[in-house]
Amino acid sequence: MIAVFAKCTVVKGKEKEFLDLAHNLAQKSREENANISYDVLCEKDKSLNEFYFLEKWQDKKALDLHMQTEHFVKTIEAVNKIIDGELEIHLYENV
Amino acid sequence: MIAVFAKCTVVKGKEKEFLDLAHNLAQKSREENANISYDVLCEKDKSLNEFYFLEKWQDKKALDLHMQTEHFVKTIEAVNKIIDGELEIHLYENV
Repeated sequence: MIAVFAKCTVVKGKEKEFLDLAHNLAQKSREENANISYDVLCEKDKSLNEFYFLEKWQDKKALDLHMQTEHFVKTIEAVNKIIDGELEIHLYENV
Repeated sequence: MIAVFAKCTVVKGKEKEFLDLAHNLAQKSREENANISYDVLCEKDKSLNEFYFLEKWQDKKALDLHMQTEHFVKTIEAVNKIIDGELEIHLYENV
């Protein structure tokens, strides 16, 4: 299993647009064979414009394939226009 | 769903002791009714003495009950003796 934890700081006023994109990406990603889980989160009781993707994939190959899908490429292109700075992406593996 | 992401920086030389404790806690926590998933992770290709608990629970009440279990209390007591600083704990919820 490989886990992705990615933080997005969304431009104020663009939260709804971001969530529509994120929920659509989550739904399509969950339909991929090698996806284990895909969540769109915010930190409990914290700032309203910081969001997180928490994803689990069977292995690194599955994640690489996901990042080539049309739903991933198009969503990230749109998300990049409404976030402050860059996506902060971290990868984790079982130990 | 509520997610927990907790970082532990383990004292050098105590990694195996930590992992034995963490894997035992993971196994017992997964047996709790309201646990969705429980993983012990490290960041891919990074420092060998930083570890993470990634947990999903049905709701905050389930997490509160988990934190009262004997396996949680005893493990955290033992873990606190072999980490540098404190556990860094963050809570997340679906949005």
